Amino acid sequence: MESEFVAWLRARLPAHERLRLGPGDDAAVLRLGDRASCVVTVDLLTDGVDFHVGQASPRRIGHKSLAVNLSDLAAMAARPLAVVVALALPRHGGRELAEGLYEGMLPLAEQFDVVIAGGDTNSWDGPLVVSITAIGEVTSHGPLLRSGAKPGDQIVVTGAFGGSILGHHFDFTPRVDEALKLNERYDLHAGIDVSDGLSIDLSRLAKESGCGAVITESLIPIAPAAEQLAAQLNDRSTPLDHALGDGEDFELILAVAPPEAERMIAEQPIDAPLTRIGHFVETPGLWQIDPAGNQRPVTPRGWEHELN
Amino acid sequence: MESEFVAWLRARLPAHERLRLGPGDDAAVLRLGDRASCVVTVDLLTDGVDFHVGQASPRRIGHKSLAVNLSDLAAMAARPLAVVVALALPRHGGRELAEGLYEGMLPLAEQFDVVIAGGDTNSWDGPLVVSITAIGEVTSHGPLLRSGAKPGDQIVVTGAFGGSILGHHFDFTPRVDEALKLNERYDLHAGIDVSDGLSIDLSRLAKESGCGAVITESLIPIAPAAEQLAAQLNDRSTPLDHALGDGEDFELILAVAPPEAERMIAEQPIDAPLTRIGHFVETPGLWQIDPAGNQRPVTPRGWEHELN
Repeated sequence: MESEFVAWLRARLPAHERLRLGPGDDAAVLRLGDRASCVVTVDLLTDGVDFHVGQASPRRIGHKSLAVNLSDLAAMAARPLAVVVALALPRHGGRELAEGLYEGMLPLAEQFDVVIAGGDTNSWDGPLVVSITAIGEVTSHGPLLRSGAKPGDQIVVTGAFGGSILGHHFDFTPRVDEALKLNERYDLHAGIDVSDGLSIDLSRLAKESGCGAVITESLIPIAPAAEQLAAQLNDRSTPLDHALGDGEDFELILAVAPPEAERMIAEQPIDAPLTRIGHFVETPGLWQIDPAGNQRPVTPRGWEHELN
Repeated sequence: MESEFVAWLRARLPAHERLRLGPGDDAAVLRLGDRASCVVTVDLLTDGVDFHVGQASPRRIGHKSLAVNLSDLAAMAARPLAVVVALALPRHGGRELAEGLYEGMLPLAEQFDVVIAGGDTNSWDGPLVVSITAIGEVTSHGPLLRSGAKPGDQIVVTGAFGGSILGHHFDFTPRVDEALKLNERYDLHAGIDVSDGLSIDLSRLAKESGCGAVITESLIPIAPAAEQLAAQLNDRSTPLDHALGDGEDFELILAVAPPEAERMIAEQPIDAPLTRIGHFVETPGLWQIDPAGNQRPVTPRGWEHELN
């Protein structure tokens, strides 16, 4: 890492009791204490896929890059502790870009009491790459896995879906506090965050749990942005299509036994609305019930990371 | 991460008691136990800078990407515990490349009992990027920092330097075991690994310690590859130039009080040779003593990560 930038970073990063040694040495030293179970996740974001440098400000890109990582910890109902940040910066304007990225990360890190423990900052002839690794701790209620849903469980979601591309995918607040609160108060069987699409991420959770899922179309909370996007695009896509397939909503999908789901819905214990959108079934697969009451198998839609 | 690749990875990664939950969920769950001090480091390697896809095999690139991270842990005298791996893969041939990278990492991970806890695998239109985050634990002897060298301390190095580009930079074994052994047996004041160049990394250690360093040219262990490279290049560069400035030796530079340094050198407790190459002084800066006994200030040479 360039020494002037390291000097800037050292001055900019706040002190924290958990950070014994910050940027500038070969590695960061963290006081994690007794962590029987640590949760670790990494997300790598690239220019042209997750953001477009020149269209979004470095701060918004920085915010998003950290937020998607924290969303993964939220999906595990884990409390964030620390992150390290690796950057591949274009040669021209890299320093300014790097500072902007950190300026976007810092308020979010402060909000969730996350230590930015340093990182690796490189220049190259390619476009911007941001790779963030987040370490979290599991609470006494345990990690929330994808694999715990049982046939008969209700599908409960936070917030609303679709049209994230209009702005939400940059500016969202990861559901960290909501996940911790819900996992503490209720017996959650499984959970996932919606990064690639409600329909595809739900099918992933179902698959990991060895069961299937049935969604009732009329119950799906559709974001105003999904309506707006459908109107803008004029391509016959409906707001429901966007809610099911757009991705980057970074809301939570939870599997909860019926009485517990009923209690959650009645209590509405978090700021975001909790909505029941369907249930899990024994037969693997994904189904939708249309407004006429017809149930039909559907192909999960959303962002697929192709590897050829 | 593409589901078929995740399936491959799940089957390929060995089970480990430290890995409570591996790839396939939103994050990995690790049993780290009581870790008062965890050491965390990230290194991001890019095609065209750290390796050239097409010139080096995916396995060698994978080995190097993990090895440089473990070398950072060695520089802290920390014991590696786990890593997460983030990849940005070119769209064509990405799957095969990803498998080759992991095949290169796995034997090294096994050698050092490091858990590969999963990661994030992406495709994009850019070249290959490999970002690895390593988590280690500090032993009861504490972390070895860059900042502990004192004027009068001897500069002790492992191995030999220069010409790494001829092959060593891909095939080296990180000095993890050596660092742990030396830190356990001797009172080491400071340490760093040589990634950017003996001369520049030494000057970084000196700067962090608030002192200067004097190298005696005739004492520097020159690798056979440095001689070979100087002969090949025919550009008036000497083997000594290569030893001082080439980088990617991934050897250790240690600061040790004179009696302790004498004991280390006499005992030669590790397989690699331990050599005293100079000493630290109060005045900040870097000096070299030439074979005639003349001491002159020098500019540190090596790989500088430019940020513009």
